[in-house]
Amino acid sequence: MRVACVQLNSGADKAANVAAAVTLVRRAAAAGARLVVLPETWTYKGSHAILEDVAENIDGPANTVLAGLAAELDVYVLAGSIYERTAQPGRYANTSVLFDPRGTAIAVYRKIHLFDAVAGAKVYRESDDLEPGGELVTADVDGLTVGLTICYDLRFPELYRSLALRGAQLLLVPAAFTEATGRDHWEVLLRARAIENGCFVVAAAQWGMHGGDRWCHGRSMIVDPWGTVLAVAPDGLGVCDADLDLAAVERVRGRLPVLAQRRPDVYRSGG
Amino acid sequence: MRVACVQLNSGADKAANVAAAVTLVRRAAAAGARLVVLPETWTYKGSHAILEDVAENIDGPANTVLAGLAAELDVYVLAGSIYERTAQPGRYANTSVLFDPRGTAIAVYRKIHLFDAVAGAKVYRESDDLEPGGELVTADVDGLTVGLTICYDLRFPELYRSLALRGAQLLLVPAAFTEATGRDHWEVLLRARAIENGCFVVAAAQWGMHGGDRWCHGRSMIVDPWGTVLAVAPDGLGVCDADLDLAAVERVRGRLPVLAQRRPDVYRSGG
Repeated sequence: MRVACVQLNSGADKAANVAAAVTLVRRAAAAGARLVVLPETWTYKGSHAILEDVAENIDGPANTVLAGLAAELDVYVLAGSIYERTAQPGRYANTSVLFDPRGTAIAVYRKIHLFDAVAGAKVYRESDDLEPGGELVTADVDGLTVGLTICYDLRFPELYRSLALRGAQLLLVPAAFTEATGRDHWEVLLRARAIENGCFVVAAAQWGMHGGDRWCHGRSMIVDPWGTVLAVAPDGLGVCDADLDLAAVERVRGRLPVLAQRRPDVYRSGG
Repeated sequence: MRVACVQLNSGADKAANVAAAVTLVRRAAAAGARLVVLPETWTYKGSHAILEDVAENIDGPANTVLAGLAAELDVYVLAGSIYERTAQPGRYANTSVLFDPRGTAIAVYRKIHLFDAVAGAKVYRESDDLEPGGELVTADVDGLTVGLTICYDLRFPELYRSLALRGAQLLLVPAAFTEATGRDHWEVLLRARAIENGCFVVAAAQWGMHGGDRWCHGRSMIVDPWGTVLAVAPDGLGVCDADLDLAAVERVRGRLPVLAQRRPDVYRSGG
């Protein structure tokens, strides 16, 4: 199975963001990808002051474009994430939707761990505007079980472990890591999640300057269950892809059967 | 606080192993270390057929040498691990003892996750001879809380999380990673444990050929809570050390407050 990451530099112009995504999803499909992964907040990266204007429902216009593209190109598309309207006015979810090759939404994941943190000199408080999700989500992609996560989730190994125990063989990480945390944490955490769970990791990233004051690290990456980096995107917009040897999951888990060797009787991490 | 890793090439000659360790603990202390960490099975690496001859109690002759050295040099010494006799004949524990500067054993940790795995072309089944431990262990080192783990434990993020939640600010990893897993997994997993928990990680390794058929990776390493590698040992026996800025733990956790942001209500990893 060939998978691809689309690397974007989404800004405040939603139409331009959607157009850029469409171009690159087409390019990924033309190169043979069966699963195409977009980054976090692929439709909009800008001031949170106008989230009310840019938020959509999960079946809103932006995702509908990707659903149509999935059906047209006969590919699975992970719509990285959008700002999703919720029942509460002024509150949104950071929501990822997976479309199958018929254009049907087969999974909806809402980011569980919101980015309330300090990176470089900048303070982020995603929870000022966002509501966190509260559900583990896996889905079937041509018989492969994929687990959905978003960006800051990557710092919580218990989420990835939970997904692996639920059957995930491939972990999705649409993201927008910052310059400071991207440089020092992005690759090492992606590889660790792959190694410790015996899973593929497919991580599509935002890259470059967003809104004049935030630089995203980029380096979209595909990692195999041994932790080998199969593909990485250089600076700029673009696509990185790799052919996955799906038998690697069972091969690595046969050598390092960590999922079966866990000691939940000893851990005290509460869940 | 200065900490040091002693990198050894322990073999079947116990007296020689103890002599090498003593020389290097003295060297580390002379360079100002307050905490000196030895690798896994520092007293013996050889055929398991003669474990009955080399196993000791935790207050046996080998550890007693290190206890005396701790008192003489006014340092904490982590006696990486020994094969410890158990109540069952022919069964042993892989046991780490931490001595304080009075030579008192202040913590005893028995390896929880035994190395039953395939690395390179070789099959390891530590559980053929060993009994696993079943307790989390932390200890106080001059006011700093340290968490004890051993080698293969490193693949289980839930153990390190449990220790961090119990207060650990520094995680100890005496180890003997193999050539195959050391090259691809050692550094990335050590750095991930540091980053995701906001902890220092101090990992002393065995290096080189042991018993004619097993090559250990070496590269003893000290990592700060941001994931920066502060020191690494080159090939060969020796010492690597680093001065720890202890305020880094609170600083990193202030920026990335992951321990407080966990969602045990969502995880399903059982413990």
